Amino acid sequence: MKNKSAPIGVFDSGVGGLTVAREIMRQLPNEKVVYFGDTARVPYGNKSKETVTRYSRQIVRFLLSQEVKTIVIACNTASAYALDEIEKEVDIPVIGVVKPGAAVAVQATSNGKIGVIATEGTIGSKIYSKYINEIDPSASVVGKACPLFVPLVEEGLWQDPVTDEIAKRYLTELIDIGIDTLILGCTHYPLIRSTLGRIMGEGVTLVNPAYETARELKGLLEKEDLLNSQAAKLGDNKYRFYVSDAAEKFKGFANSIIKYGILSAKTIKIEEY
Amino acid sequence: MKNKSAPIGVFDSGVGGLTVAREIMRQLPNEKVVYFGDTARVPYGNKSKETVTRYSRQIVRFLLSQEVKTIVIACNTASAYALDEIEKEVDIPVIGVVKPGAAVAVQATSNGKIGVIATEGTIGSKIYSKYINEIDPSASVVGKACPLFVPLVEEGLWQDPVTDEIAKRYLTELIDIGIDTLILGCTHYPLIRSTLGRIMGEGVTLVNPAYETARELKGLLEKEDLLNSQAAKLGDNKYRFYVSDAAEKFKGFANSIIKYGILSAKTIKIEEY
Repeated sequence: MKNKSAPIGVFDSGVGGLTVAREIMRQLPNEKVVYFGDTARVPYGNKSKETVTRYSRQIVRFLLSQEVKTIVIACNTASAYALDEIEKEVDIPVIGVVKPGAAVAVQATSNGKIGVIATEGTIGSKIYSKYINEIDPSASVVGKACPLFVPLVEEGLWQDPVTDEIAKRYLTELIDIGIDTLILGCTHYPLIRSTLGRIMGEGVTLVNPAYETARELKGLLEKEDLLNSQAAKLGDNKYRFYVSDAAEKFKGFANSIIKYGILSAKTIKIEEY
Repeated sequence: MKNKSAPIGVFDSGVGGLTVAREIMRQLPNEKVVYFGDTARVPYGNKSKETVTRYSRQIVRFLLSQEVKTIVIACNTASAYALDEIEKEVDIPVIGVVKPGAAVAVQATSNGKIGVIATEGTIGSKIYSKYINEIDPSASVVGKACPLFVPLVEEGLWQDPVTDEIAKRYLTELIDIGIDTLILGCTHYPLIRSTLGRIMGEGVTLVNPAYETARELKGLLEKEDLLNSQAAKLGDNKYRFYVSDAAEKFKGFANSIIKYGILSAKTIKIEEY
């Protein structure tokens, strides 16, 4: 029997996936959410496929213990490395952030030149190219790893000359190639969207996979007849947050992203799952 | 019976501790070294005391399985959080990088104003103040967390206008206070020593705990009659490197720091220790 009132499980290496959780809360206001951030092992972007997949499996086991009805991998690196494996291993629907972002980029581009900025892991996996070229084999995809963006965002330098300078260096080759669509392929990047948009110029469409992922999730829940028929009330355990370390610090950052008020964040030992 | 020819165990959250290993190799050329870098869970600087201590204990168990004769915690954050616990739990000598750095800073200062730059964890622990004031209660210690230095160093921006700009922001308050001694309280920072020295000016002594730690280790081995009486030969398993993830990437970075040639780096599952 389907439990429509069960929560949606969302996970990320840390805080970045909160930009995805925020979109899910906006677009699916009736749904409960259980969020897990792997703050004891963050970041994932520079770690290997084996390690990121092992970590993702532990988190999926934790989320299953919370009886979620579906899982959203709200981390590009984990989506790139672990989605295929995890989809095979669990019997509830699982979606990542990469495929929805790829699909909308194909719709958005006019000249067929799509740029992707992301972590080293996501870029190295070439996962965006793969999904984009499955839809449109003629599209040309250029990836650029931007490893300093995550620390700059986490330091709060969302509007700062240093972030500008670093962004210019990373983006120059994408501008020179003449892309007209840029995928923000890491969940931290929407937080510096205005800087990225200014540097790329008005002719370039920025694609935020967080938004598209929430839309795809909505479609999936409809199709699977899993939408919550009753609105979950705020405070009624509607939004629960778990981390593997430093819950108080997570709470502070989370409250700057999600405006519903993070009532509490609990620390769990993720290695034991 | 003491095994003088046993290796020295050295560990860090990742690659930073290689600056300490390098000093040990320079000052104790007869000794074997087993190095462990926790690349699957790096960085430690923004994680909690509980988590860093748990990780450190696992690594110590791994190093003990390698039959090391002594352990050097070549990570300021792990030294700050875990040294006291680990010293109690093992029956071989254990030293950290904080105490040696603190001792030499007290010798170096003329005006009694000492600055410390380090990760959030090390600064938050106030461990440098504690050790410094145990030696000289009148010394005044000012700490400054510099969370962007590690990613900037790992991106290779050792000499770069962006690193200059960030360093100026972090260091201004230490310059204004008039410190005459600055402890590089994170093992990555010696790699941007020239930038830091230029910004602080000639009147300020930079203290590199890596150098002091190797000196203290030498004294300790002499005192405990643990010095290797025969010179270990290069290639003869003299220097062994282990990591918890991405051994190839580690090797590349390590070879840019240590000039002896990292013959191999092996990946182990550190959670199983």
